[in-house]
Amino acid sequence: METSKQHIEPADGRLGVLTVGLGAVASTVIAGVELIKRGIAAPVGSVTQMETIRLREQGEGQAPLIRDFVPLAGLDQLVFGAWDPISDTAYDSALKAGVLDRYEHIEPIAAALKEIEPMPAVFDQNYVRRLEGNNVKSGATKRELAEAVRRDIRDFKASNSCDRLVIIWCASTEIFIDAGPAHESVTALEAAMEANDETVPPSMIYAYAALKEGVPFINGAPTLTTDVPAMTELAATNGVPVSGKDFKSGQTLLKTVLAPMLKARMLGLQGWYSTNILGNRDGEVLEDPDSFRSKEKTKLGVLEHLLEPGKNPELYGDFHHLVRINYYPPRGDNKEGWDNIDIFGWLGYPMQIKVDFLCRDSILAAPLALDLVLFMDLAKRAGLSGVQEWLSFYFKSPQHESGGHPEHDLFIQQANLKNELRRLMGAEQIAHAASES
Amino acid sequence: METSKQHIEPADGRLGVLTVGLGAVASTVIAGVELIKRGIAAPVGSVTQMETIRLREQGEGQAPLIRDFVPLAGLDQLVFGAWDPISDTAYDSALKAGVLDRYEHIEPIAAALKEIEPMPAVFDQNYVRRLEGNNVKSGATKRELAEAVRRDIRDFKASNSCDRLVIIWCASTEIFIDAGPAHESVTALEAAMEANDETVPPSMIYAYAALKEGVPFINGAPTLTTDVPAMTELAATNGVPVSGKDFKSGQTLLKTVLAPMLKARMLGLQGWYSTNILGNRDGEVLEDPDSFRSKEKTKLGVLEHLLEPGKNPELYGDFHHLVRINYYPPRGDNKEGWDNIDIFGWLGYPMQIKVDFLCRDSILAAPLALDLVLFMDLAKRAGLSGVQEWLSFYFKSPQHESGGHPEHDLFIQQANLKNELRRLMGAEQIAHAASES
Amino acid sequence: METSKQHIEPADGRLGVLTVGLGAVASTVIAGVELIKRGIAAPVGSVTQMETIRLREQGEGQAPLIRDFVPLAGLDQLVFGAWDPISDTAYDSALKAGVLDRYEHIEPIAAALKEIEPMPAVFDQNYVRRLEGNNVKSGATKRELAEAVRRDIRDFKASNSCDRLVIIWCASTEIFIDAGPAHESVTALEAAMEANDETVPPSMIYAYAALKEGVPFINGAPTLTTDVPAMTELAATNGVPVSGKDFKSGQTLLKTVLAPMLKARMLGLQGWYSTNILGNRDGEVLEDPDSFRSKEKTKLGVLEHLLEPGKNPELYGDFHHLVRINYYPPRGDNKEGWDNIDIFGWLGYPMQIKVDFLCRDSILAAPLALDLVLFMDLAKRAGLSGVQEWLSFYFKSPQHESGGHPEHDLFIQQANLKNELRRLMGAEQIAHAASES
Amino acid sequence: METSKQHIEPADGRLGVLTVGLGAVASTVIAGVELIKRGIAAPVGSVTQMETIRLREQGEGQAPLIRDFVPLAGLDQLVFGAWDPISDTAYDSALKAGVLDRYEHIEPIAAALKEIEPMPAVFDQNYVRRLEGNNVKSGATKRELAEAVRRDIRDFKASNSCDRLVIIWCASTEIFIDAGPAHESVTALEAAMEANDETVPPSMIYAYAALKEGVPFINGAPTLTTDVPAMTELAATNGVPVSGKDFKSGQTLLKTVLAPMLKARMLGLQGWYSTNILGNRDGEVLEDPDSFRSKEKTKLGVLEHLLEPGKNPELYGDFHHLVRINYYPPRGDNKEGWDNIDIFGWLGYPMQIKVDFLCRDSILAAPLALDLVLFMDLAKRAGLSGVQEWLSFYFKSPQHESGGHPEHDLFIQQANLKNELRRLMGAEQIAHAASES
Repeated sequence: METSKQHIEPADGRLGVLTVGLGAVASTVIAGVELIKRGIAAPVGSVTQMETIRLREQGEGQAPLIRDFVPLAGLDQLVFGAWDPISDTAYDSALKAGVLDRYEHIEPIAAALKEIEPMPAVFDQNYVRRLEGNNVKSGATKRELAEAVRRDIRDFKASNSCDRLVIIWCASTEIFIDAGPAHESVTALEAAMEANDETVPPSMIYAYAALKEGVPFINGAPTLTTDVPAMTELAATNGVPVSGKDFKSGQTLLKTVLAPMLKARMLGLQGWYSTNILGNRDGEVLEDPDSFRSKEKTKLGVLEHLLEPGKNPELYGDFHHLVRINYYPPRGDNKEGWDNIDIFGWLGYPMQIKVDFLCRDSILAAPLALDLVLFMDLAKRAGLSGVQEWLSFYFKSPQHESGGHPEHDLFIQQANLKNELRRLMGAEQIAHAASES
Repeated sequence: METSKQHIEPADGRLGVLTVGLGAVASTVIAGVELIKRGIAAPVGSVTQMETIRLREQGEGQAPLIRDFVPLAGLDQLVFGAWDPISDTAYDSALKAGVLDRYEHIEPIAAALKEIEPMPAVFDQNYVRRLEGNNVKSGATKRELAEAVRRDIRDFKASNSCDRLVIIWCASTEIFIDAGPAHESVTALEAAMEANDETVPPSMIYAYAALKEGVPFINGAPTLTTDVPAMTELAATNGVPVSGKDFKSGQTLLKTVLAPMLKARMLGLQGWYSTNILGNRDGEVLEDPDSFRSKEKTKLGVLEHLLEPGKNPELYGDFHHLVRINYYPPRGDNKEGWDNIDIFGWLGYPMQIKVDFLCRDSILAAPLALDLVLFMDLAKRAGLSGVQEWLSFYFKSPQHESGGHPEHDLFIQQANLKNELRRLMGAEQIAHAASES
Repeated sequence: METSKQHIEPADGRLGVLTVGLGAVASTVIAGVELIKRGIAAPVGSVTQMETIRLREQGEGQAPLIRDFVPLAGLDQLVFGAWDPISDTAYDSALKAGVLDRYEHIEPIAAALKEIEPMPAVFDQNYVRRLEGNNVKSGATKRELAEAVRRDIRDFKASNSCDRLVIIWCASTEIFIDAGPAHESVTALEAAMEANDETVPPSMIYAYAALKEGVPFINGAPTLTTDVPAMTELAATNGVPVSGKDFKSGQTLLKTVLAPMLKARMLGLQGWYSTNILGNRDGEVLEDPDSFRSKEKTKLGVLEHLLEPGKNPELYGDFHHLVRINYYPPRGDNKEGWDNIDIFGWLGYPMQIKVDFLCRDSILAAPLALDLVLFMDLAKRAGLSGVQEWLSFYFKSPQHESGGHPEHDLFIQQANLKNELRRLMGAEQIAHAASES
Repeated sequence: METSKQHIEPADGRLGVLTVGLGAVASTVIAGVELIKRGIAAPVGSVTQMETIRLREQGEGQAPLIRDFVPLAGLDQLVFGAWDPISDTAYDSALKAGVLDRYEHIEPIAAALKEIEPMPAVFDQNYVRRLEGNNVKSGATKRELAEAVRRDIRDFKASNSCDRLVIIWCASTEIFIDAGPAHESVTALEAAMEANDETVPPSMIYAYAALKEGVPFINGAPTLTTDVPAMTELAATNGVPVSGKDFKSGQTLLKTVLAPMLKARMLGLQGWYSTNILGNRDGEVLEDPDSFRSKEKTKLGVLEHLLEPGKNPELYGDFHHLVRINYYPPRGDNKEGWDNIDIFGWLGYPMQIKVDFLCRDSILAAPLALDLVLFMDLAKRAGLSGVQEWLSFYFKSPQHESGGHPEHDLFIQQANLKNELRRLMGAEQIAHAASES
């Protein structure tokens, strides 16, 4: 079962990280990297920085850190840039976001944060209705806007002496758009952009530009973006990895371990009510029912896939799943997710599980974004292209090759991620079953 | 990787199930089996009755039910008996327990329940201080009591025309007793019983009697019982399977999925506070600090094993874990477990998860007891003896071979259980990793 | 401060209670009264049946029961009738509602419940969109429908030999309707009913018919109904008492003690998020945004009145108050209200109070309905007419004389209620302050 | 009902505030006063600083601030001192307590805080077992220690040019001590102190010294202290006001509004389970069962008094009330109180209310301490002596004249407090009942 090691380009030089959106998530990632580099804080939550990997080739307890096992860019090699319709620097954005403690975690790195000024964004209020922006690109057609983004990419790379780039969407959720004719092929997409087709939102313009430039693209929001044939075609043609959709950070993270628990124990499900209160920009944008529709889709799908109602209709054939998000300014970025789960056991007796997750939206998302950037850069250097299913671990609605099923179970996702790393390095696969270990 | 099928005796004839204790759990199991046999209710929560097993040999979606895959005794073949220091029949006990709805689930099977009258128990208030009993065996020495239990076992088997038996401890938690010289060998144990050594509690007398009679023994409580050298020696000598300790039914079940979730995501843990309120006999017994000490041990160990503080000291090196149980009569059997989990993420920012589990103690335990009975009978017929680690799935503190580590992760436990079933039937092992499936 | 006793007609004879709606609340009230009369259950939650009243004229600890102090109709004197668009008897309705245990609390009084068949209702799906009915009155105009209801009232009184009647709205919440020209006077209202004006919903037709017949009318729902000039004019003219709106049963009950607590302690409020899940007919109706709008109005007003932002703008000038109701069938009538309250204390430090109320909608409403019926009958016999502000204790949005302010504080409402009873009986007023007692 | 104004000495000059204990509460009060004086933060939670008082003599909406109505010392007039067995200054103590944000709320007033160095304390580990101290007075007898405290008081007053003093106990909870012979009279107490009687804890030594010096004494902990005949005798003789016991800050505050709510609505109570987690010094001290016993007494008594089981035995005659406190370091001063309340309504149906109070111990206590200091100084100047029952509003277990009952209902307490202020100023009493207003 030994596999031979894959060829992987070394992680030398500077890796440019371009974030679409320089809001709470992006500024928290950037500030975090600066703090960690200086030894002021720890990269808690980051698998690339803290997690070990068990290797059959090594003795018990000899598991190396992942970052020592696979060749990843170091934090010192990262160079950040961003687009945003609001012209705040990373410093101003971090202050406004209210995620980080000003005196502990912003002022000590103020200089570095102030240097990051966002490039003008491709932005259109038709897609994100609750935001307004003054730092916006203009162009006669969406095609022109895409070309402008491509120039930004090339300019950033050159002026920052980057060897490679990764682009990650950390911006607000656009309105829900169904996959349609404009997304069927690269040709169709390009024609649609020329025609300013309304089914091409800004996120697709960024993704298109990235893929044309051969830059890996990560989608942290629930919108389609790269999850259409035109984009997977382009990714394959240009040999670029893509991954998405929607960071799995809080409530859905819990769902993807609690639902498998119910199923392992054959406990039935009558209903699952999930509500959220949050007061950041993301909360405000999701007040728009059309933006919420994007989010609702990725949030609702999880249980169906995990519980497989078809296999156990008596247990899972008729549950009610509601997801609500409420914009509630008192909380700022400190999201609260409250779940009420109505289950039933032996002879049908009802029981309830309630989970209150007092979390922090950007604190949970930031290490996922960092890991994805580093792993996508690894993927690119290892010659992987198209949808990176092994990164499903990080997403609420993992993009997958058409025809297959997304994997939602957190622990299977974790095993897949680690086995892909083992495969890349020519180490033996390891699975969970103790009888094999 | 194909293994050849193990020889397994057929599951023909009548399987006697002797419960030590005829309280809430035992009466809920017995009533449940009667109701399910009559089609009045469903065996929700039972893996043997409802769960399927995926086989590589069969196509996608062709997973058979476990009970169709391995030869298990059917519910119609079960014959129940019990010991209890209180002389209530299963009918009276079920009414007092308040677990089941009288009109829906007790009266329709009243006749069957009334037939089950408990045999006099080996009972000693020194080991369970909050209970009193009138239906108690007397004997000059513990050895004599053990012999009396052995006679009960043989009599029950004969008078009920049973082909095989299984014994399961469903009684109250005895006081904490450390492993000591009396438990070092069968010889030492027998001498200690002769001498009425106080380190031999009733549970060991039952277990000794069962193993001497070649009857599989399951320990649903947190006490040592079979988890000492004397018992594993006896189990090996007589070719009898044993398993324990302490049904993993509610709060600990949640712990064994939530702690792996934290670790998968490299989220740090500062503290975990677990409190319980319950008002059944179990709650009353656990008011005694010495009984609680037994329970506390099995409840506290879980996190240490799952989080491996040694590997990630920054994340798991210094967490505070408290477990409290409060006897609170208003709730009866409807236990409530409240957990507050203090975690930290990116750059050390604190977050909280709170879980309120409004569960039903006996409703959660009953299907575990049924599954264990059926699987232990299978083990016996398959020639397995000693500690059945593959049944760790069902226990808070899984008994394991000395020298090894118990496995606490629910999903690894589940994979191990299913792979053992596959192994027994000569089917191929299946592990989680997608790259292998 | 002694007042002379008011003249009150005796409570002799039979009191007919007509409920508009024979759903969960009405059937729970009716069944409850039958059970209490037979000694099977207790009138828990009913102030008229269980509460005492302190009298300065009597010694310490000599407080009589309210029902022994004021002349109220006894439960034996009550005769129930109802209108409902669904033709289920009270027996069928109680079974469907799932509020009461079938074997303990429905079957023992099945005969009495089966006798109560609803009269055809005035019903129009434009006002309650999620319901359908087959037991519906027809009429060319709303005026004709009102006359039909008046005939029902007279017929019920005659055929049941009632001495007096009370009518109480226990039906679903109609869509929100603003007060308008049609509600300005009795003349305008009658003309609007002739013209089938859409601003006259069924609830107003019932209220109009009741007042014309001199029958006290209670509004348990949040709709305007009697809270318009036309109705108060009619009530005054005909000497009939009215009261409303919207039973204060669960979440709002808590609000009206918690908000005064914050204010007593000068703790600031940043936000109050209230969500509800319920699965009964009421929950289904409130899925319609227009029906919800009625409810939202009565639910939101409470905090403004209690906290008086004008007096303490630093503490209460800028709080966010959200109320959500979700139709969630798994729960049936067992409503759950979850509140998150963001407060701040000394130097502005934030704190949170979370309240999870696992309540039962109809169990909380039923005793309020019974009390209101008995007190409104008392009011009628005592010659009181118009809005009965002293019954604010029972309502989310207490109807009050125009120009005044509604009182929301539960304890002030309670003091007012008791003092009105004292006044009626010529006993001395008692207020809270200990320095006076 | 008009009363004539009481003579009250003016609040001129400097008011010395001596805190026994310079831990989290005391440092939070002191820092808060400094911040408020400088306009950096607001005195949220303080009735003396923010609350208005309604006066019948003035028009609607003309309620003055309490501090404008009664002559209170201004914050600028306060001078702080303290005793503590640990020699940290108020600055060091505030840093260690972790209550206040270092950069926002400690550094700006560092100079003022550093000036406050605690005097050596009367401290004995027999009474507070979990603490150790190095800044401790020595003396052959407790009487000598009392004299040393008296000298401290006189010295502080002189060296700080104070016109008046108030002493407030903000230290840890001592072990439970029953009232006994040593507490029966001043003579007995003095003899006991001479004899080093173990029933005289340090708190009584401080109280004795204060009363001998004519300084008002406030007891913020649950211990007896001034609640014994010897102390009330001394207070009466010397004309000094006393008040206590145990600040009503969090969980009990909620109890004293929720229990009256249940009673107002005649909802029955089956059980009330209260648990707390906190990680400050107070939590550590309360780990000692003997210290906890003091606290448990004041916490448990509340419900009995509020619900009056004797009057409604069917509703309140048999409830189970448990209170638990757990030392849980991850939380520091951020206490969490979780309550589960099992109630029953109409026909006996059970319902549950759960309250999770994420509070901050010292943030809640600080404004109570400030108010008490200012009101006790007022009481002294107004010639009031002995137990100040009108300050019950602030205490879990209000000290009251022997023979009477303590008032626990928060709103009655509030009415009493305000009426006492009105009485002092010769304004008319106002009670809740609307019929009177």
